[in-house]
Amino acid sequence: MNKPRTGYIRPLDLKHGRVDMSHGSGGRAMAQLIEELFMAAFDNEFLRQQNDQASFQVPPGRMVMATDAHVVSPLFFPGGDIGCLSVHGTINDVAMAGAVPLYLSASFILEEGFPLADLARIVESMARASREAGVPVVTGDTKVVERGKGDGVFITTTGVGVVPEGVNISGDRARPGDAIIVNGPLGDHGVAIMSLRENLSFGTTIQSDTAALHGLVAAMVAAVPDIHALRDPTRGGLATTLNEIARQSGVGMMLRESALPIRAEVRAACEFLGLDPLYSANEGKLIAICRNEDAPALLAAMRAHPLGREAALVGEVIPDDHHFVQMETTFGGKRIVDWLTGEQLPRIC
Amino acid sequence: MNKPRTGYIRPLDLKHGRVDMSHGSGGRAMAQLIEELFMAAFDNEFLRQQNDQASFQVPPGRMVMATDAHVVSPLFFPGGDIGCLSVHGTINDVAMAGAVPLYLSASFILEEGFPLADLARIVESMARASREAGVPVVTGDTKVVERGKGDGVFITTTGVGVVPEGVNISGDRARPGDAIIVNGPLGDHGVAIMSLRENLSFGTTIQSDTAALHGLVAAMVAAVPDIHALRDPTRGGLATTLNEIARQSGVGMMLRESALPIRAEVRAACEFLGLDPLYSANEGKLIAICRNEDAPALLAAMRAHPLGREAALVGEVIPDDHHFVQMETTFGGKRIVDWLTGEQLPRIC
Repeated sequence: MNKPRTGYIRPLDLKHGRVDMSHGSGGRAMAQLIEELFMAAFDNEFLRQQNDQASFQVPPGRMVMATDAHVVSPLFFPGGDIGCLSVHGTINDVAMAGAVPLYLSASFILEEGFPLADLARIVESMARASREAGVPVVTGDTKVVERGKGDGVFITTTGVGVVPEGVNISGDRARPGDAIIVNGPLGDHGVAIMSLRENLSFGTTIQSDTAALHGLVAAMVAAVPDIHALRDPTRGGLATTLNEIARQSGVGMMLRESALPIRAEVRAACEFLGLDPLYSANEGKLIAICRNEDAPALLAAMRAHPLGREAALVGEVIPDDHHFVQMETTFGGKRIVDWLTGEQLPRIC
Repeated sequence: MNKPRTGYIRPLDLKHGRVDMSHGSGGRAMAQLIEELFMAAFDNEFLRQQNDQASFQVPPGRMVMATDAHVVSPLFFPGGDIGCLSVHGTINDVAMAGAVPLYLSASFILEEGFPLADLARIVESMARASREAGVPVVTGDTKVVERGKGDGVFITTTGVGVVPEGVNISGDRARPGDAIIVNGPLGDHGVAIMSLRENLSFGTTIQSDTAALHGLVAAMVAAVPDIHALRDPTRGGLATTLNEIARQSGVGMMLRESALPIRAEVRAACEFLGLDPLYSANEGKLIAICRNEDAPALLAAMRAHPLGREAALVGEVIPDDHHFVQMETTFGGKRIVDWLTGEQLPRIC
C-alpha cells in the first residue's frame, strides 16, 4: 500500500468523530475514511490494488455466489454484532452449496451522524471474522444517507466460492427416506436479539450463535460427499427453512419434537416472549439432508467438529403431495409446522 | 420453476399495495414477494435453482469482483432510475478491469410503506438493463426496515467477470507520456439529478448518461489489448477520478480544458447550480489511459461504438512527484484540479 498522499490535514477522529455526508461523496473525505478505517482493518493484497474491483485467480470448476443485506437491530448484541454477522451470514450461504468460500465484498450504507467509534468497532469485528474464517474482504463501497434516512449502518456482503468436484448439494434433492440433521441447539440468535430488544434478562444471557460454518461443511462433505441438501435456518427458523426445502423437492417432512435440540433457557425465553423456537432465527446452524444410510457417518463427522458437537438427527423426509412439514409431538400427536406468517422477528439479521 | 405451492390467499397487489415488515421476515409474505415480483422480472435458470446461492460454471483465468450500494435520490430521474443505475454501475466497475461481466447479485433494503408499484417499476427497469447487457441477476436478498429507518429502497449489486488473457488494466499503470481519453461529454448524470432536486428546468431536460459500458470496453480491448488504466468517473467526477489514478500510479496529469467534451446545457446548468462539471458524476463514461502511440487506434475503436462516438483525447500523463492533476485553461493559464472536497453532490448514485 502506498503511503497516503491525499494530504489529509489530520487523521480521522475515531473516538469522537461522526459520519458526515462528505464521507460518501467520492472525494477526499471518503478516501480518508476508506484508508484509515476500512483498509487499515481489512488490509490485504486485493484491497491494496486500490481499484474499483478486486482481481484474483480462481480454480476451474463450478462457482457459487451469494449475497445478503444485514439490517439487524440493535447493531451490537450478546455474542456478536452486525459486523461479524455480515461475514458469517454470507460465508454460510456460500458454504450451504458445499462450496469453499473464497472472497467477500462489503458495501456499507452509513447514516449521517453515526459515531465513527461504533463504525470502527463494527469494521474491526468484520475484519476479525474474515481473518478467522480465512475469507478476505477484497472489495467494497461506502455510501452515506442523511440523518433519518438510514439506521446507523446497513452492510451488504457478497461471497463467491468453488464447489469441490462431485459435490451437488441443492434444496431440490431431498428424497423420501432421507434423514434430517441439525448441527446444534435451535433458536439462540433470534432469542438473543429479542431479549435485548425487550430488555429481558433470564439469569444467564442468551448469546447469538453467529459463526462461520464452512469448516464444518468441509468436514461433512469429506465424510459424505453426496449430501443432498444443506441450508442455514436464519430468518423464519427451522420451520420455514424446512418448508422451503419441502416445496423445492416436492416432498413432506416429519420432525420428532423430542429430538429437537433446544436449550432450556431459550425455551423459557420463547415462552416468555410468545415466540416459537422453531421459527426463531439461527446464525450458526445448518440443516443437512442425506440418505438415511449416510446419516451415522455424517453425524459422526459433525460431532467431531467444534460447531457440530450437539448435532442431532431430528426427523425424516416423507412422501407428501402437499409438501407439509409435520411434527410428532412429545405427547404422541402430530401437528403441521407451517411457514412463518407475519413478522415474528423483524430485522433479526 | 415449480408452480408456487405456498398457498398465497391472493396475489400481491402491485397497484396499491405497500411494503410491510412481513416482506422481510423470511416467511410466507417474503416468499410471495420474491416469486411474484423479483423472480417474475429477473426469471433465469440460476434464480430458478431457488437456493440461497447461485451456482454456475466459470471459465478458468483471472476473475474480478466489484460491489456498489445505490442510494440515489430521487429514485426516478430523467434518463433512468435506481434500478437500471444499479445494474449499469456494477457492470461498469467490473468492465473497468477489461473484464467480461458474467453475473450480478442484488440485495434490496426496503422501507416499510414503500409502494409496491414503485418497487415493481424499479425491478422491471433492473431486469431490462440486465437483459440488454446480457448479465443476469443470479441471486439476491430482501430486507425491510421500519418507516423512517430507510428511504424507499437501497440496492446493492455485486458483479463478477473474467479478464481476457493478456489484459492487465489497473489504476497504477499510468505512465508519463500516456494519453488520457474519455468516451463522451462529462457531467450529465450529476446535473440531471441536481436539476431535478432543485426543481430546475433549462428548456431541454438534461438526461442521465447511465449506460453499461462493457460492450464499449470489449471493443477497446480488442483494438488495444494493452490499455494501461480504465475507470468510470462517477462520484467526484473526472477531477477526483484522475486524482485517484495519479496517486495510485505516482504520476501527474495535464488536461486541456479546450478538449474536454461538455454539453452547452450542462455547462449552463452547472453555472446556475454553482457546480463544476469536472466534479459532476457520470454513469456512462470512462477514462482510458494508454500509450500515446496507441491513442489513435483506441479513439477509432471507441468512435465506432455507439457509446464512444464523442470520444476525445483530453490530456496526457506527466511526471510529477506531487501527483497533481493540472489543466491548461482556455485562456492559456494552468490551474490545479484538486480532489473533490466536501459534499458537492450527496446521494448521486
